Amino acid sequence: MAAKFDVVGIGNAIVDVISQTTDEFLAQNGLVKSGMALIDTAQAEALYAKMGPGLEMSGGSAGNTMAGIAVLGGKGAFIGKVANDQLGGVYRHDIRAVGVTFDTPDLTDGTPTGRCLILVTPDGHRTMNTFLGACQQLTPDDIDDDTIRDSQVTYLEGYLWDPPPAKEAFLKAARIAHEAGRKVSLSLSDAFCVHRHHESFLDLVAGHVDILFANETEICALYGTDFDGALRAVRGHCETAVLTRSEKGAVVLSGDDIVAVPAEPVEKVVDTTGAGDLFAAGFLHGYTTGRDLATCARLGAISAAEIISHYGARAQVDLKTLAAKKLG
Amino acid sequence: MAAKFDVVGIGNAIVDVISQTTDEFLAQNGLVKSGMALIDTAQAEALYAKMGPGLEMSGGSAGNTMAGIAVLGGKGAFIGKVANDQLGGVYRHDIRAVGVTFDTPDLTDGTPTGRCLILVTPDGHRTMNTFLGACQQLTPDDIDDDTIRDSQVTYLEGYLWDPPPAKEAFLKAARIAHEAGRKVSLSLSDAFCVHRHHESFLDLVAGHVDILFANETEICALYGTDFDGALRAVRGHCETAVLTRSEKGAVVLSGDDIVAVPAEPVEKVVDTTGAGDLFAAGFLHGYTTGRDLATCARLGAISAAEIISHYGARAQVDLKTLAAKKLG
Repeated sequence: MAAKFDVVGIGNAIVDVISQTTDEFLAQNGLVKSGMALIDTAQAEALYAKMGPGLEMSGGSAGNTMAGIAVLGGKGAFIGKVANDQLGGVYRHDIRAVGVTFDTPDLTDGTPTGRCLILVTPDGHRTMNTFLGACQQLTPDDIDDDTIRDSQVTYLEGYLWDPPPAKEAFLKAARIAHEAGRKVSLSLSDAFCVHRHHESFLDLVAGHVDILFANETEICALYGTDFDGALRAVRGHCETAVLTRSEKGAVVLSGDDIVAVPAEPVEKVVDTTGAGDLFAAGFLHGYTTGRDLATCARLGAISAAEIISHYGARAQVDLKTLAAKKLG
Repeated sequence: MAAKFDVVGIGNAIVDVISQTTDEFLAQNGLVKSGMALIDTAQAEALYAKMGPGLEMSGGSAGNTMAGIAVLGGKGAFIGKVANDQLGGVYRHDIRAVGVTFDTPDLTDGTPTGRCLILVTPDGHRTMNTFLGACQQLTPDDIDDDTIRDSQVTYLEGYLWDPPPAKEAFLKAARIAHEAGRKVSLSLSDAFCVHRHHESFLDLVAGHVDILFANETEICALYGTDFDGALRAVRGHCETAVLTRSEKGAVVLSGDDIVAVPAEPVEKVVDTTGAGDLFAAGFLHGYTTGRDLATCARLGAISAAEIISHYGARAQVDLKTLAAKKLG
């Protein structure tokens, strides 16, 4: 059935504040390298006061994925909550400016737009500290039924499983999508996130997810086993599993098919923020335009490679042209 | 006489919104490439709605210079006006985070923090559209006498000559500096700015400025002549003139001395925003730490080369270490 959108992404609408740091700074401030920690207002203010100058860019996992799909030439929509403040305006502008439909109403209760303090070490690894702010007020009312029904794939970020009303929104969207005969996709987002919500994530994957995205750490955390064990466990648990392994490439399982693709070479890894989000963008763009699994995965690898070669999790080049050139 | 600060910069406190664009977009929107245009609220909103996703970073000409001086290891202060809004918070955080003292009180009348919509074409040239916002409310009351007296050099950006109360603030600062036996420095900022304020800029340079910064277009606009004519005209008009010529390097005149330095090689020019600001930072850092003219100019060239190799007008590397290595 024809759809207005290839993908609708639902996620935390977050402005990234990217700053260079050192391993010493992370250690001194008790930050777990490469992880994502949720912080409250006081923690956000204290960390911001201590960290270096920032670069502000729209981010958020599913938002990054949707921006990637748009830059690849796909048709996308986004559902997420920003406040009616300056950073909310920045978020709304940026995602619309790449061509993504974004009509979720602003939050007006004074809670500010969410932000993520991202500390990047010289090795390119990012450590994220998220202040959810307005994101916590995404509710089932924000799920626009028509948009879900009119999207080939509804894509949900695992991070959304943290704010309680967002969970309900998440389940509502999955239900509408399936009732309309559409696919539901989930990114596990983060190993800490998987640990926090272990049982419910297992239920989610088995009961609601057609296309699962996870990196090696996340999928191992989900099944409490090593990568080979996780590969066996996920097969049959959901229709398609896309498992990324950083510089070791990615493995895709779909029914009886299994495809492995190498990572796309990168001259210098500057900032790994958004690598998983852009892999998902590439894969889903391929998927919704009828490409074979290997091509979907290659599109993921190409998109991820571009994003880690600079600061920020939104593409700085025309991914559509880049992908066409790389795929030959 | 010993001073607490090497330099105090006074300027428009502006957050940059940097976006990639094309020459076609500039033409379609009647924007003069490589220039700086002042825009009002309505124009800012209309242009922002049309332009691509942005990258937000603290900017402002004198602010960039002060951040550069701090990263080079110098001691600096900044005077400029931001609002008590989110972007004002970003501005204050960023300049303090590099070690610059910034104590000008917030504006609280509802006028937002100033911003500059910077459109960067693939050749690296930037076209700036400035919405002054809170900057227009910088007044003589914001000039902290002690800070001026305690700074070897008071550095003023020519852009400040646009908002009327800022002009008075500018002249007050220059007077206090000279009464304390300090130096006053001015950047001409922009050729359009020179055209707008031609007569008063000539008076300013002759009557108040010890160290003048200008690029080729600006100095030619000031004296209404070609570069050689401008060189002859500026000699004697102020103590020291630092004239930058992009890839042709820079010429410094000081009393009877004249020094020319080549431009520092750059692998790829990504975004020229801040080139002049960082040249001034390098030069003034050398000047206030007692280096000879040629070394001051080399420090300027090294700092400018770093800034044009990436997006944004604030240093992304440790300029102090870079400069030490390059100077040998």
